[in-house]
Amino acid sequence: MSGNTFGKLFTVTTFGESHGVALGCIVDGCPPGIELSAEDLQIDLDRRKPGTSRYTTQRRESDEVQILSGVFEGKTTGTSIGMVIFNKDQRSQDYGKIKELFRPGHADYTYQQKYGFRDYRGGGRSSARETAMRVAAGAVAKKYLKQKHGIEVRAYLSQMGDVKVDLKDWDAVEQNPFFCADPDKIDALDALMRDLKKQGDSIGAKVSVVADNVPVGWGEPVFDRLDADIAHALMSINAVKGVEIGDGFECVNQKGSEHRDVLTPEGFLSNHAGGVLGGISTGQSVVAHIAMKPTSSITVPGETVDINGDSAEVITKGRHDPCVGIRAVPIAEAMMAITLMDHCLRHRGQNADVQSTTPVIPAQPK
Amino acid sequence: MSGNTFGKLFTVTTFGESHGVALGCIVDGCPPGIELSAEDLQIDLDRRKPGTSRYTTQRRESDEVQILSGVFEGKTTGTSIGMVIFNKDQRSQDYGKIKELFRPGHADYTYQQKYGFRDYRGGGRSSARETAMRVAAGAVAKKYLKQKHGIEVRAYLSQMGDVKVDLKDWDAVEQNPFFCADPDKIDALDALMRDLKKQGDSIGAKVSVVADNVPVGWGEPVFDRLDADIAHALMSINAVKGVEIGDGFECVNQKGSEHRDVLTPEGFLSNHAGGVLGGISTGQSVVAHIAMKPTSSITVPGETVDINGDSAEVITKGRHDPCVGIRAVPIAEAMMAITLMDHCLRHRGQNADVQSTTPVIPAQPK
Amino acid sequence: MSGNTFGKLFTVTTFGESHGVALGCIVDGCPPGIELSAEDLQIDLDRRKPGTSRYTTQRRESDEVQILSGVFEGKTTGTSIGMVIFNKDQRSQDYGKIKELFRPGHADYTYQQKYGFRDYRGGGRSSARETAMRVAAGAVAKKYLKQKHGIEVRAYLSQMGDVKVDLKDWDAVEQNPFFCADPDKIDALDALMRDLKKQGDSIGAKVSVVADNVPVGWGEPVFDRLDADIAHALMSINAVKGVEIGDGFECVNQKGSEHRDVLTPEGFLSNHAGGVLGGISTGQSVVAHIAMKPTSSITVPGETVDINGDSAEVITKGRHDPCVGIRAVPIAEAMMAITLMDHCLRHRGQNADVQSTTPVIPAQPK
Amino acid sequence: MSGNTFGKLFTVTTFGESHGVALGCIVDGCPPGIELSAEDLQIDLDRRKPGTSRYTTQRRESDEVQILSGVFEGKTTGTSIGMVIFNKDQRSQDYGKIKELFRPGHADYTYQQKYGFRDYRGGGRSSARETAMRVAAGAVAKKYLKQKHGIEVRAYLSQMGDVKVDLKDWDAVEQNPFFCADPDKIDALDALMRDLKKQGDSIGAKVSVVADNVPVGWGEPVFDRLDADIAHALMSINAVKGVEIGDGFECVNQKGSEHRDVLTPEGFLSNHAGGVLGGISTGQSVVAHIAMKPTSSITVPGETVDINGDSAEVITKGRHDPCVGIRAVPIAEAMMAITLMDHCLRHRGQNADVQSTTPVIPAQPK
Repeated sequence: MSGNTFGKLFTVTTFGESHGVALGCIVDGCPPGIELSAEDLQIDLDRRKPGTSRYTTQRRESDEVQILSGVFEGKTTGTSIGMVIFNKDQRSQDYGKIKELFRPGHADYTYQQKYGFRDYRGGGRSSARETAMRVAAGAVAKKYLKQKHGIEVRAYLSQMGDVKVDLKDWDAVEQNPFFCADPDKIDALDALMRDLKKQGDSIGAKVSVVADNVPVGWGEPVFDRLDADIAHALMSINAVKGVEIGDGFECVNQKGSEHRDVLTPEGFLSNHAGGVLGGISTGQSVVAHIAMKPTSSITVPGETVDINGDSAEVITKGRHDPCVGIRAVPIAEAMMAITLMDHCLRHRGQNADVQSTTPVIPAQPK
Repeated sequence: MSGNTFGKLFTVTTFGESHGVALGCIVDGCPPGIELSAEDLQIDLDRRKPGTSRYTTQRRESDEVQILSGVFEGKTTGTSIGMVIFNKDQRSQDYGKIKELFRPGHADYTYQQKYGFRDYRGGGRSSARETAMRVAAGAVAKKYLKQKHGIEVRAYLSQMGDVKVDLKDWDAVEQNPFFCADPDKIDALDALMRDLKKQGDSIGAKVSVVADNVPVGWGEPVFDRLDADIAHALMSINAVKGVEIGDGFECVNQKGSEHRDVLTPEGFLSNHAGGVLGGISTGQSVVAHIAMKPTSSITVPGETVDINGDSAEVITKGRHDPCVGIRAVPIAEAMMAITLMDHCLRHRGQNADVQSTTPVIPAQPK
Repeated sequence: MSGNTFGKLFTVTTFGESHGVALGCIVDGCPPGIELSAEDLQIDLDRRKPGTSRYTTQRRESDEVQILSGVFEGKTTGTSIGMVIFNKDQRSQDYGKIKELFRPGHADYTYQQKYGFRDYRGGGRSSARETAMRVAAGAVAKKYLKQKHGIEVRAYLSQMGDVKVDLKDWDAVEQNPFFCADPDKIDALDALMRDLKKQGDSIGAKVSVVADNVPVGWGEPVFDRLDADIAHALMSINAVKGVEIGDGFECVNQKGSEHRDVLTPEGFLSNHAGGVLGGISTGQSVVAHIAMKPTSSITVPGETVDINGDSAEVITKGRHDPCVGIRAVPIAEAMMAITLMDHCLRHRGQNADVQSTTPVIPAQPK
Repeated sequence: MSGNTFGKLFTVTTFGESHGVALGCIVDGCPPGIELSAEDLQIDLDRRKPGTSRYTTQRRESDEVQILSGVFEGKTTGTSIGMVIFNKDQRSQDYGKIKELFRPGHADYTYQQKYGFRDYRGGGRSSARETAMRVAAGAVAKKYLKQKHGIEVRAYLSQMGDVKVDLKDWDAVEQNPFFCADPDKIDALDALMRDLKKQGDSIGAKVSVVADNVPVGWGEPVFDRLDADIAHALMSINAVKGVEIGDGFECVNQKGSEHRDVLTPEGFLSNHAGGVLGGISTGQSVVAHIAMKPTSSITVPGETVDINGDSAEVITKGRHDPCVGIRAVPIAEAMMAITLMDHCLRHRGQNADVQSTTPVIPAQPK
């Protein structure tokens, strides 16, 4: 594959540029008989949609997804599911200047050198707009995982700049524009965003993803470990620069005696591993964290070079998020769900016959 | 694939258990005409070999690799390269107790539940011994990258416990048993290891990998980003719990104006991005960091369950590293090299015709 | 992948049912900078379009393809190309009876058992309508191969029932509704079709595909032989039951001394091999033949079973081709072109450095 | 992948040259808990082994296979299975002349041009010797299919030159050196072979493969049709130039009313389709036929060119089969079994939840 497909048995292939005619994807390998409608996908699409709050780009997109195939009489047929979102607000007029420049921190320069030229309209294929279809595809996976295994895949903003947010309450996450899991931190985030708007600057963020009720046994040892595929999936999201599973980089200063998660007949006593051992799910919650870089689309003037290699000054005008981490929350959920779904199918493909005589250990003691 | 293959055009498929007959791999897609001999691979194999210092497992393995195919008259033929290492020091007698127990922090329990039973001898397929063949395959990639592109893929131990090690000197790395890049830190590492030995405990570590002279343009946008595949590759190494590209998790508290790497005709002024933008190499050094968890094979007694699900006590006897991070250094280099090699071939497969009119920007100003 | 993607470096993924909202595909891995427009694709789409002659189904479809991404300012960008054709003439009303029955020779029964239910409208995903997107994707490959390598991929109807058609004249192929390469055979084909219409029956056919100017060296030995992938590609076309490369089944009664193609400095003296030796192109024309079964959509009444497994009688009403082989001509070209394109990119990915000191032998002596 | 791997969930990757150190393969994705020993593989290896009769090459090879991993206490573990056969009879001394020449009908020229040079010893990677590992891997698949589904995969020589052989008796197949299914034809085959030996010439052959008891529902629609993957698998065998499913090329002159296989509650009334409809198994026997070209390794002198492109004369001395079709029988079985196994796992990966309310139709009426 040439890089626009993710997954082995449950595969997602996407297309579309920021200001092209449409975005779309093909979801292949979805089991048949799953109730599915555009509404199921729209819920998550609306969560990542631009213009939903004064803190995200004001670009106006309804992001209305259509299912073009693979669903018959309200159920998936087992054949490939085609989906499309037509771009409305294209504004492709005002690119006169930016097309000559390489914005620092952007993919402008690398695309130019890789392909010899680039679609400069809104970043073309490198725009975060591409992630809309990941969210649509992820919603299919989330629905299946929930329905067949009771798996809940949820994410939240766990840090923005120096404001750390603990997971106080899942319900709170959907009740504020920051996907903040601690109501007491909303004002701090609000203040931080306002300052950034003033400065015309941006900030990084940390997003945490948790999948509850993942059964033991998913993931392939060696290269296609569940955690390795999760790392691949999450690092493939625009602006992500780091991925952790469980304790992640805290492990560097941990001892074996404190890190290891004790097994008891009543359940695991801790989850430093983040729900994966030897690349295979343990039956505990699968926990991952990602680091998002601050967007480079800022109005603070910067030095750069133009397409002739001469120095130039750049200011990114237009409609941009001071923190792309916010809208990454539903995207991270989607990529986690797609990865779990793929491994669900792969696991049973190879191991449907298996019966273990060892009882399953609960995620934690009652 | 079922998880034992990595790569798309340049592929590595491995087999072998810790105490099985042999370990082996097949390297497919290597360009023809590259001078290659077992000696080329042995150098790196010896760097990761157990028993090389009093700080790593005392298991005695010559780890002598044989090339079985794909090389003719000293040159690669373009066909698949088969390699094998026969296990010598198997010691499979003394597993009476461990076969009944699930060691906390190990893959024992997840293998048992996934497959219904497991090869308990030394961890079977989940043993770090599997990584020997990654190192052998990586050596092929390193040789090609060096020869054709002058690429240097090197790693070092950047932290162990609370001892941080900066990159002072690449030459120092090979002159101490810790792959420590700062001679002044060797005593501290030495002391830390001695304490751990006394306690029968282990410690985590951080390893940093740097690839110099990677040309601009490698990596596919969207899912197969160069950094996403690097994250996949590195997270697939035993005990790795986190991966960073460039500034990684430091980005969370950075502003856009400080993170973005300024382009000038003379070169990039910084490398916060770690050599990748939009999933494509920038021409700067590709920089990654990994977090290694402390090994769970420690003599500190622990609580656990046995294969019947009843509680039990476990003590891991035998020959184990207090810090698996040390031997991870050549493994991390190998996985980085394999990933770069794959993208080298993929890039030219699609883009061999491309000529960019934009001059290449140097990694940094002279 | 789950079966809706073809190719490794140049990949085509399709979706869509006969009477669904739309058909579509994603072409991934196309090199950048190739001039491409919907018109380029429409030419071949019109060649396979239903209703073009009184000999093919009278279903009315404009089959108007739209390019939704991957093309900017008239050139491919190197990113994924999304295409869609919206279904117009859906007629989904009159399926009352057929939904209860399994038509003999159709995929009705196998879909029902594989997926538990099926989209019965016009055969759903199993309809030859799916091939429209193959033709669109193949047109991209044909354009690239022609432009970069001067490769001409053409097919013709070489037999229908007992009427054999030799390749007399490539120009003639496009000048009759049968893709017949011998003007003298048109009347015979015409008569055969008229009889079949009367009888309400159908007939099989043989289609031959020829790719001229394929350079030496494309194709991977062992499993991904060029001819093996061509066989995969062609056998994946609806109703194809046999594939031959070069002399095909004639080889069974050939001696080695007659089969082998003699090499001379001036050129090969014959092409029994069909342009492939050891799975690698020889530089001669790549020649393949396919056998198409007679369509089972006929008005001759037949015995069958219904979805409850009880016996029933079936008569397929509506608009169907007496010979699906006719419209298979552009589809066979498309699949051959897609396969060649994929191997073109794969070959240079691995072997771009290669220089052979042996002069290239011409396809045939001047 | 670069062509040495076959399959998606159940994958086989091979290496090795005719006169290299060893041949080997890795079987990945095999379900755990299957009893497996080297003896299971040796049975089929001995069936294809050179030197088994005076009609096949007299090269002496014990072809003793070793299992290096993936099997523990006599059962597959679910991890990758490594296997190796060390070459004994290498005779690499006497290649002085052939290394300068391209034998017509051989892969010598294409390898030279693709890779820039070649391993000329016994054909290197292009030798049929490579197929030994396919047979070993196929034996794993055959055992699983037999044990779990009662599937019987068998092949026989159905034609050699003008001697046609019908399937009279499966037991007869193993009781003669030709895999001949009709005892009355053995003398004719014997005579034909003796003549060819005298002439120093070779002859083509047709081999038929039948898989009984394949359940309904295996195979993916569109590109990864069961029959398309079978065509890929069989066409990838050295010297194969044609593949048919069911009636194959006979379909060209069939009418729809005669070709379609009638379904009745008691069973299918015929099997023109060869057990596949719409790319999915029907529950009938899967039937395929392959055309093998006559080997080009003959002592009849031939015209050719040398590595400098100058004309030359060639005579292939040494130990060769007058009919490679004979030894292709176990190889064809192996490739059919590997393909079925892969689709078995893929099918249940996606469709394990499916329950069809339609009763299964027997392969044929009692």
